[in-house]
Amino acid sequence: MTIETDYFDLTGSEALKTVFRNHATGISIVTSTDGVGNPIGFTASSVTSLGSTPPLVSLNIAQGASSYQHIRPGKLMAIHTLDADNLALAEKLAGSKESRFVDKDFRVGPEGIPVFFNASSVLLVRVVNKIEVEANALVVLSAESAHERRSSKEPLIYFQRGYHTLGPRLKDNF
Amino acid sequence: MTIETDYFDLTGSEALKTVFRNHATGISIVTSTDGVGNPIGFTASSVTSLGSTPPLVSLNIAQGASSYQHIRPGKLMAIHTLDADNLALAEKLAGSKESRFVDKDFRVGPEGIPVFFNASSVLLVRVVNKIEVEANALVVLSAESAHERRSSKEPLIYFQRGYHTLGPRLKDNF
Repeated sequence: MTIETDYFDLTGSEALKTVFRNHATGISIVTSTDGVGNPIGFTASSVTSLGSTPPLVSLNIAQGASSYQHIRPGKLMAIHTLDADNLALAEKLAGSKESRFVDKDFRVGPEGIPVFFNASSVLLVRVVNKIEVEANALVVLSAESAHERRSSKEPLIYFQRGYHTLGPRLKDNF
Repeated sequence: MTIETDYFDLTGSEALKTVFRNHATGISIVTSTDGVGNPIGFTASSVTSLGSTPPLVSLNIAQGASSYQHIRPGKLMAIHTLDADNLALAEKLAGSKESRFVDKDFRVGPEGIPVFFNASSVLLVRVVNKIEVEANALVVLSAESAHERRSSKEPLIYFQRGYHTLGPRLKDNF
C-alpha cells in the first residue's frame, strides 16, 4: 500500500510549523559576553548534543538575533538546563534585552560570562565554528566543564506553543 | 560575586553527559531508503527546527550510524513526531536494524520512503547539506510538505535516560 504525495497536504513553512508544534523540546538559557564584556543571553529550544567523544554541542540561531554577532570561534558560553520552577527565568531571557540581567540571579563566571545559579546544571562550551544557512546559523560548540546544582526531576519543556513540565516515566533506557 | 573556574567540577564527556541528562528532548523517527530502495530509519533525539523562512530543519547523527552513508544531498527523508503510545515504535527503530521494517505499521510514500502512519505527524524533508564534525555530522534539511494525523497532546519525551510523556501545561506562549 502506498501513501501518495497528495496525502502530504501541508507545504513549506506551514508544514514545518505544524509538525514542530507536535515536537517537544527542552528549554535552556545560553549566555556569554558582548565585545566589551557586558552579559548577553537568550532562551533557546535548539541546544542539542552532537557527540560525546569529543564532547560537542550544536545550537541553532537566527542571524538576526541580537546575540548572534557576539558568537565567534573561541568564545566561551554557558548553557543552562532549566526546571519548571525556572519558568520566570526562561521568560525573562526570552523577553526584552534590557531586562535580562537586571536581577541578582546570576554571578560572573569564567571569562566574565554570566552564570544563573538557580539552573539545574550549567555547561561551559567554547564556539568551534558557525555555519550560516539562509537567515540562520548552526553553531558547533566544544564542551569544556560543567556544574550540576541538582539532578533534574522536573525539566522545563516547550510544546504546542506553551511551557510544560514532565509527566510520568514510561520506561528506562539504561 | 564571582563563580570561580573550580566551581565547574565536571569536565569533558562527563560534563556533557551530566548536563544533557537534565535536558529533555522530543523523540522522533527519521526514515528514507538505501541505495537500492530498501527502507532505512532510526529513532532520533536531535531533530531541531532551523528556521521557518525558508523552512529548514537540522539533525545530528554519528558518522558510524548505519543510515549515515545514505544521507546525501537531494535525498528525501521523512521525520515522524511521536506520542507516548508510539513508545514501542521508538524502541523498535532504536533496536536491531533487521527488525525495523518487519511489521505492517508503515506504508510506502513519495520516492519510496517508508511512512509510519501511526505517528502524530510526518514532515517530508530533503537533504540540503551535511557538515562533518569529528565523528559526527550536522545534516541540514529543507522542509517540503507534511501531514498531521492528529494534533499531539501526549508527546514522547526522552529525559534522564528514559522515555516519558508530558506533564501539566504551565503557561501559554502565543
